[in-house]
Amino acid sequence: MAISPLAPDAFPKLPQIDGVRFASGAAGVKYKDRKDVMLVELATGTSIAGVFTRSSTRSSPVLDCQSKLGGSSDDRAAILVNSGNSNAFTGSAGEKSVEAICGTVEDATGIPKSRIFTASTGVIGERLPHDKITDKISDLATDLSAFGIEGAANAIMTTDTFAKGASAEVLIDGEVVKIAGIAKGSGMIAPDMATMLVYIFTDAKIEQPALQALLGALTDQTFNCITVDSDTSTSDTLMIAATGASGVDVTDSAGFTQALHGVMLDLAHQVVRDGEGATKFVEVKVTGAVSDVEARQVGLSIANSPLVKTAIAGEDPNWGRIVMAVGKSGAQADRDLLSIKFGDVLVAENGWVSPNYSEEVGAEYMKQQDILITVDLGIGGGIGTVWTCDLTHGYISINADYRS
Amino acid sequence: MAISPLAPDAFPKLPQIDGVRFASGAAGVKYKDRKDVMLVELATGTSIAGVFTRSSTRSSPVLDCQSKLGGSSDDRAAILVNSGNSNAFTGSAGEKSVEAICGTVEDATGIPKSRIFTASTGVIGERLPHDKITDKISDLATDLSAFGIEGAANAIMTTDTFAKGASAEVLIDGEVVKIAGIAKGSGMIAPDMATMLVYIFTDAKIEQPALQALLGALTDQTFNCITVDSDTSTSDTLMIAATGASGVDVTDSAGFTQALHGVMLDLAHQVVRDGEGATKFVEVKVTGAVSDVEARQVGLSIANSPLVKTAIAGEDPNWGRIVMAVGKSGAQADRDLLSIKFGDVLVAENGWVSPNYSEEVGAEYMKQQDILITVDLGIGGGIGTVWTCDLTHGYISINADYRS
Repeated sequence: MAISPLAPDAFPKLPQIDGVRFASGAAGVKYKDRKDVMLVELATGTSIAGVFTRSSTRSSPVLDCQSKLGGSSDDRAAILVNSGNSNAFTGSAGEKSVEAICGTVEDATGIPKSRIFTASTGVIGERLPHDKITDKISDLATDLSAFGIEGAANAIMTTDTFAKGASAEVLIDGEVVKIAGIAKGSGMIAPDMATMLVYIFTDAKIEQPALQALLGALTDQTFNCITVDSDTSTSDTLMIAATGASGVDVTDSAGFTQALHGVMLDLAHQVVRDGEGATKFVEVKVTGAVSDVEARQVGLSIANSPLVKTAIAGEDPNWGRIVMAVGKSGAQADRDLLSIKFGDVLVAENGWVSPNYSEEVGAEYMKQQDILITVDLGIGGGIGTVWTCDLTHGYISINADYRS
Repeated sequence: MAISPLAPDAFPKLPQIDGVRFASGAAGVKYKDRKDVMLVELATGTSIAGVFTRSSTRSSPVLDCQSKLGGSSDDRAAILVNSGNSNAFTGSAGEKSVEAICGTVEDATGIPKSRIFTASTGVIGERLPHDKITDKISDLATDLSAFGIEGAANAIMTTDTFAKGASAEVLIDGEVVKIAGIAKGSGMIAPDMATMLVYIFTDAKIEQPALQALLGALTDQTFNCITVDSDTSTSDTLMIAATGASGVDVTDSAGFTQALHGVMLDLAHQVVRDGEGATKFVEVKVTGAVSDVEARQVGLSIANSPLVKTAIAGEDPNWGRIVMAVGKSGAQADRDLLSIKFGDVLVAENGWVSPNYSEEVGAEYMKQQDILITVDLGIGGGIGTVWTCDLTHGYISINADYRS
């Protein structure tokens, strides 16, 4: 598959995080001739937090991870992820696969099962051939290296066209704290509490409950504000591991919060930029709503509208469809107070097209690869921003025969 | 544009409704060489009920119609509809256009403005060139005929590929009561209280409040259960006019309710069968939910899922995506109690693929033009059925350059 036209030039150079080692390999779960399994080892004392899909049909690995969060950090921990098969809706066989994988990782590494977190991503409803994975685990355990994060980012991809990574280094009390994260995701993207697969590592020191609270709050401003196709995955998993190796306590650190927010937003944007069939990256900024909640509601109504998304694909400044999407959102709005901008171009105000708007200027703006749509509802102080991509023939092609 | 492969063979033969006359013509609002305006005259004493979009950005004609419902029926009434321009989000100019059209109809027919209902359908946000319409009104008034319903059905089409009509005749207390209806709609279809444009006529006798209540209840079982693309129009209008000419009082008549339900469901299905780019007609039946409301919620989550709809377009029996859509719906569900059928083929049960399911049988079923998906949640007595179509390259082609 061709790489997304919105992809960054290259995988970024990510800092090593003390206390974290990676390995990846090709287990042949579904894909041929590529990596499809990764193992992460986390040092003793690492705090681990996670947010997961709220889907009522979530997968066995998700249920297993949720049950293990918040346990003691007196041991090392591990994360094992495969791509190509999501082990979702696989009944009791799914639970047995998780058990078999965790048991084998325990045997190979000495890490207790209660500290082993797995994830699976790919087709739903097919039995996971976990023997292919367990056969590789001792090799992975041997290969663990502080330098393996790019291989890990590649191993977790499914319909992704590029591997996604982001990082930050932040000075706190004169000491450097590092953050590095990887993500996968391209379709079935409408996160609800979490998203696709995202793993973030830091050498910051922070207790698990504080880390969990921070992750939840930042998820609401980042991954919960993106959508590719309004479909929510059964496997959405976002985990962060704080090894504490820097010795810097970041509890309540505004600098750390800001840096982590930046890494999460960067990864979230990369997921949108790799949206299935995407040719445009779209930011929808909503202001003047009665509340932040309603601002996001309007933003998602616009970002999920197939008519808005196809208009953007066609480079058509079809602001009438934005009016429609505001109208259907369920949020409070007044037709005559609404204003709409494409970039800096004021398109509509006072319940009608702006007298200074020219269709030629609007059409010219829509040719850009990155599109900013600003909607001011004019009735309150609520604000919210969401990100999405356009809806193209590429999306149909990918999804009308993805499984076959 | 090619006619939908799901279209009926021909426009149906509709009965004349005593007290109703139609005219249609070509005003050149936007389209060339086709009818784009229709006028309906309704006899004195006609009860008129309507349901409309709940969009907060609804159009001037919708607001005007809503203000006029429930008035006296001591005069004749009229309905004037144009296609090609929706007169939505056109500020005070939109209201002036409605006023100009109603005034001209009053002059040409002698019907008071308070009994004149208009609708406009087409592009949003462009000023309605209402002079083109008012110039035609005296011709339309002269042409009124009891036989003009098919012309009217053609005049209100936009991206529709076929005109939509349905009828019923029902015996009540030994007397025949007739119902005839027309509809337009193809994209921006996710009705909320009403839908696109639908006009239904009957010679039944029924007071306006009873007719309004009946229409609302039946809309919830018909037009509010269809979706093409999850986008709700700013112009959705469904009106029914009961002339009373049969002399048969149908208040609380189970026979009339059933017949009207049948006409509304037929028209609703025709709208889905003309869904933009549609190649498959899909019925999603949900049983075993905790309530009827949650059953419809699950049904719409499946019917609006782009991943489900593209799988159907690709004739892929991808039931994993149905599991996903159930999971994201927000309705109560238990992965291990869920069962899914394609037609009579049991696909999934007990939290996994059915032991007797064969992918070949599933794939063969998906080749049909009409697809039935049944989901039993296994936790309660709630039921609901929704109807949709597949999502194809045709939808993208139509909407990436509809306005340009």
